[in-house]
Amino acid sequence: MSQENRIPPPTALVASLPATVPFVGPEAHMRASGRPFRARLGANESLFGPSPRAVAAMAAAAQDVWMYGDSESHDLRAALATQHGVAPENIVVGEGIDGLLGNLVRLMVGPGDAVVTSDGAYPTFNYHVAGFGGVLHKVPYRDDHEDPDALLARARAVGAKLVYLANPDNPMGSWHGAARVQAMIDATPSDTLLVLDEAYVEFAPDGTAPQMRPDTPNVIRMRTFSKGYGMAGLRVGYAIAHRDLVALFDRVRNHFGIGRIAQAGALAALKDADHLADVRAQVARARDTLADIAARNGLRALPSATNFVAIDCGNGDERARAILGALMAQDIFVRMPFVAPQNRCIRVSVGDAAALDAFAQALPVALRKAGQTAR
Amino acid sequence: MSQENRIPPPTALVASLPATVPFVGPEAHMRASGRPFRARLGANESLFGPSPRAVAAMAAAAQDVWMYGDSESHDLRAALATQHGVAPENIVVGEGIDGLLGNLVRLMVGPGDAVVTSDGAYPTFNYHVAGFGGVLHKVPYRDDHEDPDALLARARAVGAKLVYLANPDNPMGSWHGAARVQAMIDATPSDTLLVLDEAYVEFAPDGTAPQMRPDTPNVIRMRTFSKGYGMAGLRVGYAIAHRDLVALFDRVRNHFGIGRIAQAGALAALKDADHLADVRAQVARARDTLADIAARNGLRALPSATNFVAIDCGNGDERARAILGALMAQDIFVRMPFVAPQNRCIRVSVGDAAALDAFAQALPVALRKAGQTAR
Repeated sequence: MSQENRIPPPTALVASLPATVPFVGPEAHMRASGRPFRARLGANESLFGPSPRAVAAMAAAAQDVWMYGDSESHDLRAALATQHGVAPENIVVGEGIDGLLGNLVRLMVGPGDAVVTSDGAYPTFNYHVAGFGGVLHKVPYRDDHEDPDALLARARAVGAKLVYLANPDNPMGSWHGAARVQAMIDATPSDTLLVLDEAYVEFAPDGTAPQMRPDTPNVIRMRTFSKGYGMAGLRVGYAIAHRDLVALFDRVRNHFGIGRIAQAGALAALKDADHLADVRAQVARARDTLADIAARNGLRALPSATNFVAIDCGNGDERARAILGALMAQDIFVRMPFVAPQNRCIRVSVGDAAALDAFAQALPVALRKAGQTAR
Repeated sequence: MSQENRIPPPTALVASLPATVPFVGPEAHMRASGRPFRARLGANESLFGPSPRAVAAMAAAAQDVWMYGDSESHDLRAALATQHGVAPENIVVGEGIDGLLGNLVRLMVGPGDAVVTSDGAYPTFNYHVAGFGGVLHKVPYRDDHEDPDALLARARAVGAKLVYLANPDNPMGSWHGAARVQAMIDATPSDTLLVLDEAYVEFAPDGTAPQMRPDTPNVIRMRTFSKGYGMAGLRVGYAIAHRDLVALFDRVRNHFGIGRIAQAGALAALKDADHLADVRAQVARARDTLADIAARNGLRALPSATNFVAIDCGNGDERARAILGALMAQDIFVRMPFVAPQNRCIRVSVGDAAALDAFAQALPVALRKAGQTAR
């Protein structure tokens, strides 16, 4: 390539970043295979769908989409504030938790700054940390749980700007009770910010989320409409934090980034508590069904407080990988954890009856194939 | 405030940023006044609305919003590529041009890097440049047009990473023909990237946009569904550039940031060429109507290739500011340019018949009031 055909150079940081993406999306998988999925159980989407009231609100808002959304998401923040017993000034709405994590890392992490997370936890957080030049320090899971004590010990040792805990955890579905999480909050060093990702908390038992104390200056809690509310394709998440931290987002965020349909859908979904309760009940039943399917096939489903279940396929990652491949070959979309020892499992989102039936039919076939190829 | 109540410190760069926002949104204005607008003519939204086919597609997609959008926006990029005669690899879809500008600045501009724009041009671009520590160099408008020669001369003098040109321009509505813009592209230094913001180009005369030459390594062209397509509240923009530059976006963008409804709406809108043609015709007529209204009130409307008109209120900014205030007091939402000499004007988006009637009634009242207070 001649000098003339080279694009102008990006920053040194960007030049150093890999060209990888955090996740290959479901649609990209389908394009690769040339076939639709029989069961879409790999992205922890809610097959039980959004609230019908939210669907109606979004359809109505489509007419009004010629107008920008409210740059302050005033009505949505007010409703969220009421629901959580905090002030609107404690809430920032963003383009999903992914978008909020990107902005948060940008606010707090510069080149060389230390960040602590668990080895195998949410890769998009790691993507943002790398993207702003942060240095990731990873501690292992303990018994398939993220390990608050190890996270904090490492955070202290490296002087971390951020320490990340997902509760419940993705990809294992495990969780800690509120008392343990509150103890972690209390023990976090004052110059470290605890990023408490509660994307799945609507599926968790009562007593999983600590009380909201938005005056605590060094914790930010992330929530989303993608999981319990069933609107992953709408891109609305929010964070609850000290108002001084929330105010910082206004220095960097895309102020008109939350669209009109997104605001209308999220607000309507929030007001439909019955739908959320119904989804919670269906998710709990579907988790049991997945555990039964696993047991009938000689596998063990781990306890889960989320809308997915990690199914233990035995020691090592080879068998899990073979089973995953044999499921994907049958157009059953599932994923698996990235690192050992969690990657002895496959991760299966809960589905409706049709999706669970398809999985139940496909799993024994996959196990036979995997037995032939990987045992 | 005690040490214990301080949030952990942000980066030095973020700490240095002001707490301002690029624009106060329409909804924020209405909350401040406590009244709805009679005419919403301040944000260059399309009062002619989106394509009915796009509305139908968005309403249908609302049912499917439990699924993440396609992280590669494959179908939309394919359709855009066909329309523009480029490859899908030349196109990146983002959360409006605002979102794309943020990512682009992040890719190319580090602390201390020079960026060139016009004094009074799009403030959200400046917001992003400041947000990544870039140093802005501004050249004046020339005869109410952005000045390609002055922009390039300054870019050469300061070794700019980016030079920004909006064609047509916002807030003046002026434009350059394709030959002049192509000459600017050709003369841009090889280590400088020309950011050609064509948000309003659908309203411009044929012959405004240069031919697409996506192999040119140092120009990126920004387009949007917010203006001509009437979907500002959907948040979909796209950029066309050399594939090596497009590929860099994958290192930093929010991969699932474009939602399912957004993708469906944009794709349907793109296919409804009749609606776009109809909107173009209505916008052209409405510009003439605004010019007539201005003339009847002794004011001059500047020629415009956009969906708004800058109306010259005389010398200096005081009279324009007084007229603007007197219009806002009548719940007629308009804006005005930020800096001299452009700020002798008010900027009025074109509207439908009802909005133009409301403006026609309000303007003489505003002029009387402004005459009393500011002359």
